Amino acid sequence: MRIMLRVSYDGREYCGWQFQPGEKTIEGQLNMVLSNIYNTDIKVIGASRTDAGVHSLGNVCVFDVDQSKIPVEKLPYVMNNALPQDIRVWQSLQVDDDFHPRHTNSLKTYEYRIWNADFPDPVKRYYTHFTYRKLDVEKMREAAALLVGEHDFAAFVSAGSQAQTTVRTIYSIDIIEEYPDNTLNINNSNSVNSRLIVIRVKGSGFLYNMVRIIAGTLMSIGSGLKDVNDISLMLESGKREYGGETAPACGLTMIGIEFL
Amino acid sequence: MRIMLRVSYDGREYCGWQFQPGEKTIEGQLNMVLSNIYNTDIKVIGASRTDAGVHSLGNVCVFDVDQSKIPVEKLPYVMNNALPQDIRVWQSLQVDDDFHPRHTNSLKTYEYRIWNADFPDPVKRYYTHFTYRKLDVEKMREAAALLVGEHDFAAFVSAGSQAQTTVRTIYSIDIIEEYPDNTLNINNSNSVNSRLIVIRVKGSGFLYNMVRIIAGTLMSIGSGLKDVNDISLMLESGKREYGGETAPACGLTMIGIEFL
Repeated sequence: MRIMLRVSYDGREYCGWQFQPGEKTIEGQLNMVLSNIYNTDIKVIGASRTDAGVHSLGNVCVFDVDQSKIPVEKLPYVMNNALPQDIRVWQSLQVDDDFHPRHTNSLKTYEYRIWNADFPDPVKRYYTHFTYRKLDVEKMREAAALLVGEHDFAAFVSAGSQAQTTVRTIYSIDIIEEYPDNTLNINNSNSVNSRLIVIRVKGSGFLYNMVRIIAGTLMSIGSGLKDVNDISLMLESGKREYGGETAPACGLTMIGIEFL
Repeated sequence: MRIMLRVSYDGREYCGWQFQPGEKTIEGQLNMVLSNIYNTDIKVIGASRTDAGVHSLGNVCVFDVDQSKIPVEKLPYVMNNALPQDIRVWQSLQVDDDFHPRHTNSLKTYEYRIWNADFPDPVKRYYTHFTYRKLDVEKMREAAALLVGEHDFAAFVSAGSQAQTTVRTIYSIDIIEEYPDNTLNINNSNSVNSRLIVIRVKGSGFLYNMVRIIAGTLMSIGSGLKDVNDISLMLESGKREYGGETAPACGLTMIGIEFL
């Protein structure tokens, strides 16, 4: 039987999702815990190979066992007992034996979270990227709109990708601003303009570092270092060097996957 | 001259705001950094003595110096250079020499954040309290409404308080539900009901552990362990034992202070 798991994790302490011998990885932890539970060698197949330091609220993987002595829906409790606190399994269910999380059409949601303020916020430092550069969100939205649809994203991939094609479809990019309560109604204040900017990207799938390159390029456009038209230049030329920096991993969270 | 600072911090590593010899405290860190900068012994006066493990987005303190060789508005940059990353000063301004942050009428906002779901969320674990008990938010709102106004909160204070009176005024308690995106549109799911419940309390001032006792009592009412009427019983009797547990520190954040 094939069992699907949904897994959330704090990526700070991990070298990413994908198993690497001798390194601490999410996949490695899941394999170890499942192999112990079922007393046989189990290897999960993941939906998204998130990078080192990237977080997730709901990555997906499947694995096969002859039979589960534990009721499938109880598996999260048993696994969480053995997993470290920065990984939690929150759903398990039996799926078709030929269900493959990377070969099934899906909608993946990622969020890149930016704390855009004069000063860092200690309680946000692990799960957002901080920048004091004022970002023009309207310009970022204009640039993001050019990325929506089916495009060749060759300029939005880091060296080391093993993808066979760089054509991908982005369904939507929403840029959301959230203003914290603590800066309201403070009299005589220095100029403090604090806000959280969330870049929410939905697509069928993403290339290596693609969301972080999108986030880095949109930030460059928002801060005026680059122009909205640089997006068109990137899409047309396929050249990575026209883009902004790859935004740091800590700001990226894989939100979840819907299978279509 | 008297200088006022607004300070945010991640309280996890600290024994609270208040200076204690030999312990790591927020006040102790600020005193040390300011004393080094001004090369004289400086002791800040804080507005709120938050407990061990409690976070803040904007606690306030003042201190006195004969003269500041650093332009007052640049002080956050100089202090943040010397402070650990879990404390950030984000505002500094000169105030009247007789301005005292505890003797000035103010509106203080605290938030108690609860991750109410079947499973913990790793990326929320440091800054929310997790409970899997289903909470009836409508009941919690009904109970919270009884606390708004001027009351004797003798039943809402832990032993060890040095307050001269237990009468306080709560201006408002809002209970906000936030539903995360990752649980939407997931087919065939186990029953997963995940949400963030934020108890936002505004008042003129709070007793020792008062917000955490309010949060713990509201959670007991929400989960059915206690009744809405227990709030009236607490207010009338002044007896702490009629209340719920003191909710854990990690869920509490001091949001900010407005001086009126």
